[in-house]
Amino acid sequence: MLRSLTGIRKMSKLSKVIKELEAFAPTAFAEKWDNVGLLIEPYRKEGAEEHTVKTILLTNDLTEPVMKEAIEKQAELIISYHPPIFKPLTRITQNHWKERVVAACLANSIALYSPHTAWDKVVGGVNDWLAKVLDIKTIKPLVQEVGALPGNGSGRFVETSFPIGELIHRLQEHIQTCVHVAYAVGHTGNTVIHTVGICAGSGASLLRDVQADLIITGEMSHHELLDFQHRGTTVLLCNHSNSERGFLREFQPKLNVMLDGSCRIFVSEKDKDPLVTLTRTSAAGDASTAAQQTN
Amino acid sequence: MLRSLTGIRKMSKLSKVIKELEAFAPTAFAEKWDNVGLLIEPYRKEGAEEHTVKTILLTNDLTEPVMKEAIEKQAELIISYHPPIFKPLTRITQNHWKERVVAACLANSIALYSPHTAWDKVVGGVNDWLAKVLDIKTIKPLVQEVGALPGNGSGRFVETSFPIGELIHRLQEHIQTCVHVAYAVGHTGNTVIHTVGICAGSGASLLRDVQADLIITGEMSHHELLDFQHRGTTVLLCNHSNSERGFLREFQPKLNVMLDGSCRIFVSEKDKDPLVTLTRTSAAGDASTAAQQTN
Amino acid sequence: MLRSLTGIRKMSKLSKVIKELEAFAPTAFAEKWDNVGLLIEPYRKEGAEEHTVKTILLTNDLTEPVMKEAIEKQAELIISYHPPIFKPLTRITQNHWKERVVAACLANSIALYSPHTAWDKVVGGVNDWLAKVLDIKTIKPLVQEVGALPGNGSGRFVETSFPIGELIHRLQEHIQTCVHVAYAVGHTGNTVIHTVGICAGSGASLLRDVQADLIITGEMSHHELLDFQHRGTTVLLCNHSNSERGFLREFQPKLNVMLDGSCRIFVSEKDKDPLVTLTRTSAAGDASTAAQQTN
Amino acid sequence: MLRSLTGIRKMSKLSKVIKELEAFAPTAFAEKWDNVGLLIEPYRKEGAEEHTVKTILLTNDLTEPVMKEAIEKQAELIISYHPPIFKPLTRITQNHWKERVVAACLANSIALYSPHTAWDKVVGGVNDWLAKVLDIKTIKPLVQEVGALPGNGSGRFVETSFPIGELIHRLQEHIQTCVHVAYAVGHTGNTVIHTVGICAGSGASLLRDVQADLIITGEMSHHELLDFQHRGTTVLLCNHSNSERGFLREFQPKLNVMLDGSCRIFVSEKDKDPLVTLTRTSAAGDASTAAQQTN
Amino acid sequence: MLRSLTGIRKMSKLSKVIKELEAFAPTAFAEKWDNVGLLIEPYRKEGAEEHTVKTILLTNDLTEPVMKEAIEKQAELIISYHPPIFKPLTRITQNHWKERVVAACLANSIALYSPHTAWDKVVGGVNDWLAKVLDIKTIKPLVQEVGALPGNGSGRFVETSFPIGELIHRLQEHIQTCVHVAYAVGHTGNTVIHTVGICAGSGASLLRDVQADLIITGEMSHHELLDFQHRGTTVLLCNHSNSERGFLREFQPKLNVMLDGSCRIFVSEKDKDPLVTLTRTSAAGDASTAAQQTN
Amino acid sequence: MLRSLTGIRKMSKLSKVIKELEAFAPTAFAEKWDNVGLLIEPYRKEGAEEHTVKTILLTNDLTEPVMKEAIEKQAELIISYHPPIFKPLTRITQNHWKERVVAACLANSIALYSPHTAWDKVVGGVNDWLAKVLDIKTIKPLVQEVGALPGNGSGRFVETSFPIGELIHRLQEHIQTCVHVAYAVGHTGNTVIHTVGICAGSGASLLRDVQADLIITGEMSHHELLDFQHRGTTVLLCNHSNSERGFLREFQPKLNVMLDGSCRIFVSEKDKDPLVTLTRTSAAGDASTAAQQTN
Repeated sequence: MLRSLTGIRKMSKLSKVIKELEAFAPTAFAEKWDNVGLLIEPYRKEGAEEHTVKTILLTNDLTEPVMKEAIEKQAELIISYHPPIFKPLTRITQNHWKERVVAACLANSIALYSPHTAWDKVVGGVNDWLAKVLDIKTIKPLVQEVGALPGNGSGRFVETSFPIGELIHRLQEHIQTCVHVAYAVGHTGNTVIHTVGICAGSGASLLRDVQADLIITGEMSHHELLDFQHRGTTVLLCNHSNSERGFLREFQPKLNVMLDGSCRIFVSEKDKDPLVTLTRTSAAGDASTAAQQTN
Repeated sequence: MLRSLTGIRKMSKLSKVIKELEAFAPTAFAEKWDNVGLLIEPYRKEGAEEHTVKTILLTNDLTEPVMKEAIEKQAELIISYHPPIFKPLTRITQNHWKERVVAACLANSIALYSPHTAWDKVVGGVNDWLAKVLDIKTIKPLVQEVGALPGNGSGRFVETSFPIGELIHRLQEHIQTCVHVAYAVGHTGNTVIHTVGICAGSGASLLRDVQADLIITGEMSHHELLDFQHRGTTVLLCNHSNSERGFLREFQPKLNVMLDGSCRIFVSEKDKDPLVTLTRTSAAGDASTAAQQTN
Repeated sequence: MLRSLTGIRKMSKLSKVIKELEAFAPTAFAEKWDNVGLLIEPYRKEGAEEHTVKTILLTNDLTEPVMKEAIEKQAELIISYHPPIFKPLTRITQNHWKERVVAACLANSIALYSPHTAWDKVVGGVNDWLAKVLDIKTIKPLVQEVGALPGNGSGRFVETSFPIGELIHRLQEHIQTCVHVAYAVGHTGNTVIHTVGICAGSGASLLRDVQADLIITGEMSHHELLDFQHRGTTVLLCNHSNSERGFLREFQPKLNVMLDGSCRIFVSEKDKDPLVTLTRTSAAGDASTAAQQTN
Repeated sequence: MLRSLTGIRKMSKLSKVIKELEAFAPTAFAEKWDNVGLLIEPYRKEGAEEHTVKTILLTNDLTEPVMKEAIEKQAELIISYHPPIFKPLTRITQNHWKERVVAACLANSIALYSPHTAWDKVVGGVNDWLAKVLDIKTIKPLVQEVGALPGNGSGRFVETSFPIGELIHRLQEHIQTCVHVAYAVGHTGNTVIHTVGICAGSGASLLRDVQADLIITGEMSHHELLDFQHRGTTVLLCNHSNSERGFLREFQPKLNVMLDGSCRIFVSEKDKDPLVTLTRTSAAGDASTAAQQTN
Repeated sequence: MLRSLTGIRKMSKLSKVIKELEAFAPTAFAEKWDNVGLLIEPYRKEGAEEHTVKTILLTNDLTEPVMKEAIEKQAELIISYHPPIFKPLTRITQNHWKERVVAACLANSIALYSPHTAWDKVVGGVNDWLAKVLDIKTIKPLVQEVGALPGNGSGRFVETSFPIGELIHRLQEHIQTCVHVAYAVGHTGNTVIHTVGICAGSGASLLRDVQADLIITGEMSHHELLDFQHRGTTVLLCNHSNSERGFLREFQPKLNVMLDGSCRIFVSEKDKDPLVTLTRTSAAGDASTAAQQTN
Repeated sequence: MLRSLTGIRKMSKLSKVIKELEAFAPTAFAEKWDNVGLLIEPYRKEGAEEHTVKTILLTNDLTEPVMKEAIEKQAELIISYHPPIFKPLTRITQNHWKERVVAACLANSIALYSPHTAWDKVVGGVNDWLAKVLDIKTIKPLVQEVGALPGNGSGRFVETSFPIGELIHRLQEHIQTCVHVAYAVGHTGNTVIHTVGICAGSGASLLRDVQADLIITGEMSHHELLDFQHRGTTVLLCNHSNSERGFLREFQPKLNVMLDGSCRIFVSEKDKDPLVTLTRTSAAGDASTAAQQTN
């Protein structure tokens, strides 16, 4: 703030911001099927200087309400955890929301960067944030990849000691919303668990062969849940993006330090999980107010 | 009842029961990828008579607690909506819960029948049961197949007129548990919707190209939800089996009539959706009691 | 022109231009593997009016020199015969020329439309233009598709009567550059041919099973040429885009009529085939002057 | 026998028998496409003790006559060289013989174990038994796998010295039935062969690239035979299971020692190759008597 | 004969012979995977006349002994039921017997024609010849193809009435060698069968879904035999080419009539099934003499 | 020559010639998809001696005119750089030119050998011949394969220093015909290039990822050319076989030395690239004379 008052114009070159993001979590480390890194770079006339960044918007999903917010906040860079371009594009028109988002970025000179699985794997990333809900005795990736630094890798496997009921309570506070539970055959809220598998987002395929007392992930299908129940694993579901979004609040000050305060950094106010749970009785009155929602 | 009093032993041949089930919903009508019909038939010694059925257990999923219930109730036939054998078996041991269930049926002389997508498609089946939550102006299958009788087919498309908030309330009563909602961009609880797509279970792939104001299904992934939201479709999720299970209570008396009261028919007491939602505040006290759960 | 003098602002809505282009050659008629129609549509703010077009640039290939020309001429619409987006895009940065072209369109509010195989097939399209080099006795598509209007379809098959030498001379005048010839075994410049297969662009796969005395196309591989030679078919090659580009000069006034003079329409001055042939002796002097080139 | 007299009840836990079978030939060593090991394990009530084995039946193929024999002999374990479950099962009814066999095992509390290619590869297994027909100078597997103990592997390659005619005679005695011969171009019964490829069962694909004077296997197709003949290899065919079954008589006492006499072990009397050869003249009289058959 | 005496040189143009062969059984009717028709045509110098045929050799398989016989008999055309080129050739050297056969044809100006599945399907072809062993009440193809003349198609299905033992005897006389039998569970030589499936060569895949009391084919694998046995079908095996070769003796005079006596036609003396069965006792004496063989 | 005068009959066994050819460039080194080595070997009667070679014809493509030349020159061996059998053959008739060529070889006892990619990769082979047009500072393969001798591999990468215009002139002299050029954006004839990628034949896929100022190859498609232009690489095209054929003149004396003068060796006079370029003006007069062609 002071610097601003003293007339020092706060900004950073786009390449400088990307360099810092890559230093935190190299995109080369993302999954092969993923589409990460600088996905949109504003047009430069021949001979023009590099794009500069004064304002950065952090979001989990780049929905249209978030896109509108970015334009209003005059962001020059959006960092969207999920890549808005995943299925490759054959055209960019105003007929599909993902194409509209891409066109809006290019028309408003906004760069777009997505880290996705690079942030899932990195030490201090999304899965480590989710694991903070536990009293951690030991922690390691579910998959330790050849050539990766220690601690980096997909998912996390944690040794701890917790009654399930207490863990659910803590998780509700950590992700600030309700939690869905599928108790293993024989488990109750009082059962003490000792091993926990963690995978932000959709963890079923990664967690399939993990032997753990309990699993925390974002979403999972009915038949996958039945399989975990029958092999003695209780599953806690947060809804997909609730298992990821909280990390942005933690990342905001980190990024500020990385960039030496040279940019304004916002966490999106419009970004939220698409799903809300409405309890049976509460919905009776007025389904459109926030009050009926279950957090 | 009278016959029972007069001491006439109530029972039916297995083939007779199957004939009635096929008359209600022919398994030939199920999806090509499905595995439906008589999946387990008890062993008969050379020259032995056909298997007879006195007690039938209806269930949505044949979990091990339900299997135990079937043995205790001395069922000779289990009708499980979802087929317990889906991935074909290369062995039948005591190491995997699905193999144990198969072994238990054969060792206890219990037949197993699964209708699955045959019941999804048939008039008066699972999707028609789910559609009863609406004031129906017109109703038709999402997909009308060549050669099928009118009204039969996958999913349902309904014309109606409802504020979303009221519909959520009605759905909660119909499935007797909480509902998860993903409002379309611009929708609120007061928005009146006129067209509804319905698909019990996991409806995303079937509903992908349906133009409707609102969709009711069991489960859907995060990225599928974002797509529906952005094209103006609100989504109501019931959890997978809650969108299906209620049909069994309706089917029980129907089957009794079909079989002319010749068998005892139970709806399983142990069958339930694996997921329960725990609200943020309620979980605080004692996570192991039913009270914390959100219905 | 008069209207311009009287101060009526000449322009057209983008949708109106596309409607006329579709009336000339429906993109639904293009090949399944092709990527045609409106490929880029400028960004519109919420509530903004539709994109309007005053200036249109016609080109065969949207290279970067042509893109620069479009910006200088203040075009609002580029019609590029070949689709600049063919391999789908996973990102849009300044590192690859095709991504730069897409970014330039969106940053400068220029729409992009590509007709490609729709123009190849339509009556009065690219192949009919190329066939004008012949004295046509009868003409029909190489492939008459089910449901297409008579005369529409891929390539052309022409009955005529011509010595090959004279045809080469005429073709050089028609495409205004040199021609490459692969004489069939037994053919010379004096051989009179009676049937001609025509396919603008790369015609080998389409022409493979055509029985004709001579073939005119843009490019063909060595082993394909040997096969045609041995089955008695002389091949004339124009270079890929020289077999297509001339059509634009013919299309320019047609489009002017379609649009009722409401837009300025340019044929690109920068668009040209990448290949030029340099003769053995001429190159000796100064390879950088236009004089050495063989037309 | 003595122990029996002294009232000590002879039996073994199923896991103990399997441990000994695995010690003889680890199923991990079987081919990837094979389905081996414990294929059926009898149902155990919650808390019940492990299945015990007093009587074991050895068979090459678990046909329905053999299944009936197992029930009559009150076997608790069948060891079937060929796995009765090969194509995975989607249901278990009384309509198909393989499903009936599986149901019979589970209804009669009979475990089922199949070793198949594990026994083919192991030293002292099926191929080594078949090779005993030769005067062996040297012997090694056709394929020596990385990590396998010396001598283990698919098929056998033997150096020997034998006139073909004498070898045929010996083989007839060894397998106790007739032999089919396809002489290589230039070979007669007097030709002395020095190298022999051996593969019990269907050996064509394994033997395809083996250079040997003679090959012994169970069955081979017409076009495969013509190929071997033309590259100088005489082929002796035993019929598929005749090239395998004799091993069981050798294995019976071995298994008795492994199990320390704790189980009764039978070789099936009903198991036999499906094919019998009827000579042209002998069939004339009465085709239904055993006398017409060619051994 | 008379013409020969009067000095009229007997011969026919190759195209004339092929025309007659096609009139008997059009190769267009063969299976899609097959390789039939004129496979080798002798080289003609520019301007040379068409290949003429004085001598034709008929064979089931074109082995090297048969090739030698063709050269000695100065054949200008070989008709080989099985196509000697089946796997396409990438080279033609002296290293592989099939390449040597092709080179021998071309070096000795011998044409080669293969009918294969065209003869299997045609009325009066290979399968109809094999069916003559039965007292035929009704006969039809196993598969009646759309567009085929009545009676043409793959395999034959015959209604008859026969004790199996008598049928075996008749079949031995018809194919003039021994027969291998796999009795269905419950069948003996005295069982009277009423329906017979017939497929010359390797009939397992074609016969898989045929419901018949008995099947006659050339060869079948062990596991296929077990399946037929268990569903009540007795199988008679002739060895592959013995189920086909006898047709040539019947075809020889037919072809003579078709060609109006213009060519000498031989049935190969060197062509025979590669397999001979040696009985257990007979082999004892001297394995190299014909006497030990079982016919 | 002297030896011939002294009556020593000049000849070589075929195996000896092949041994020398393999010593120059082992066919094992060719690409996996290629079909190289001895493709046709003349037929030998049983007991006949090996094929001997007095006359060898070298050609780039074995067209029918070249085949006729080979017969007239009484060649016993044709060495054709491109393999005449590439798509495997299912028959050898007089209906297709490639089958006629194969039949002609076998009917005239002419062997056929094709080296193709073995010659492309070898040191001193086709690509090294093409690279001679440059003043070479350093040279290495585009792809250095594991296990290959240094310098061997696909394509060549050369460091040099040349104005493009001068290089074009030199190339025209080296291949003795005209050259087609696609200048990179910004390049002219005066641009000095420092790095050159070389690939005889069709080099696009091999050169795709090569960073070079200029590329020399035989042929390339329109869209590939546009890609190279936009990433700053000028492309010179020679026509496919003109980039290869000149090597034969260099190889002829080498082969003479290898064979110690034991065979007459001709370079085909009928072999030539199928394409000739006719300039716009020259074609006007008389298209059938050689004078109009552009070299």
